[in-house]
Amino acid sequence: MAETAIVLASGGLDSAVCLGEAARDHDVAMLHINYGQRTEARELQAFHDLADHYGVTRKLVADISYLKAIGGSSLVDTEMTVETGLPTDGQAVPSTYVPFRNAHILCVGMSWAEVMGARALYIGAVQEDGSGYPDCTEAFYEKFAAAAEAGTKPETRVRLVTPLIRMTKAQIVRRGLDLAVPLHLTWSCYTESDTACGVCESCRLRLRGFAQAGETDPIGYRA
Amino acid sequence: MAETAIVLASGGLDSAVCLGEAARDHDVAMLHINYGQRTEARELQAFHDLADHYGVTRKLVADISYLKAIGGSSLVDTEMTVETGLPTDGQAVPSTYVPFRNAHILCVGMSWAEVMGARALYIGAVQEDGSGYPDCTEAFYEKFAAAAEAGTKPETRVRLVTPLIRMTKAQIVRRGLDLAVPLHLTWSCYTESDTACGVCESCRLRLRGFAQAGETDPIGYRA
Repeated sequence: MAETAIVLASGGLDSAVCLGEAARDHDVAMLHINYGQRTEARELQAFHDLADHYGVTRKLVADISYLKAIGGSSLVDTEMTVETGLPTDGQAVPSTYVPFRNAHILCVGMSWAEVMGARALYIGAVQEDGSGYPDCTEAFYEKFAAAAEAGTKPETRVRLVTPLIRMTKAQIVRRGLDLAVPLHLTWSCYTESDTACGVCESCRLRLRGFAQAGETDPIGYRA
Repeated sequence: MAETAIVLASGGLDSAVCLGEAARDHDVAMLHINYGQRTEARELQAFHDLADHYGVTRKLVADISYLKAIGGSSLVDTEMTVETGLPTDGQAVPSTYVPFRNAHILCVGMSWAEVMGARALYIGAVQEDGSGYPDCTEAFYEKFAAAAEAGTKPETRVRLVTPLIRMTKAQIVRRGLDLAVPLHLTWSCYTESDTACGVCESCRLRLRGFAQAGETDPIGYRA
């Protein structure tokens, strides 16, 4: 029997391709996190659509909406403005950064993995061609894995797997197509839940990835 | 103006003494976590009572009750039995261990610290004379601090402070009395919310600490 892997799945492009990677040789369980983000319901729908596609029945949806109370991010604070356009090298961390968010998500995954006996935890973080978030760096994941090793039971052994961390968006699109990942089911837009805006940072990164891969994004855009 | 420190305060003996330490030279903000534990309401009361005592107005109560859904601990799963008696050396991790719980708590504190600009995060974890939980070890906190350093903004600098980590319970009691910490306001019992049971692991550790310090615990016990 294949080992169990938990996949952290926002429902976006990156996590879908990450899911496709994990599903190649693992029994997959999927974890989704609501944290009061603007497009929470739409992301959750994408999560369930992807789970259905892969026949995943072990699903956990966890609510960490205290991140909305903490604030400090335009993704959860509707008084703030979501940047449009692509991130540029050397600029400050974008306002869409949710302080230390991915650490919370990893913690939920790690606790669930420890209880379930899963041997791997997949997260589709992207460093090189990403948004410049500090919690999307390879250094962070390496250090978090060391903390998890120290902070869980001696018999708990969970590999933290970041298959996309060094990939460009174009490579991610290409890999998704190679693995027949249902990219039409994914949702990446930070601001809209019906038709993607096409101008927020997340839409821009995604569209550039498809363009650079020479492919057409199967979802529609307003702009 | 004093630097701000966030204190993770369950409302128990250890976190109260940790609060007393932090309050000596910091402006304090207090964080409490509900996670579906058996004595949730009683702990929360102790948290607010301690905050009132120290005049702390910046308080955050975060709910991570997904830990109850994940289960795997007798503290959140009422089908499981809470061990009675003291932990013994070399035994397995007790059933009251909530998988990787303290990492979740640290994450909430770190996110809040990053947004608020706090410079220190205090947690009253105890390794030597504690319950044998892997997320109460000095090694874990060192590695978590490294992960937080890597996973937050470059300008975010939050010291992770564990003033009790090497103390015995007797030393903690003594330190609490020296600092005039209102120990009568604290709550440690794992199972009861009116009068402490006196027999669960947490009560036993607390009572032994008072006895070894030659002091009387100001709260009453059933047993």
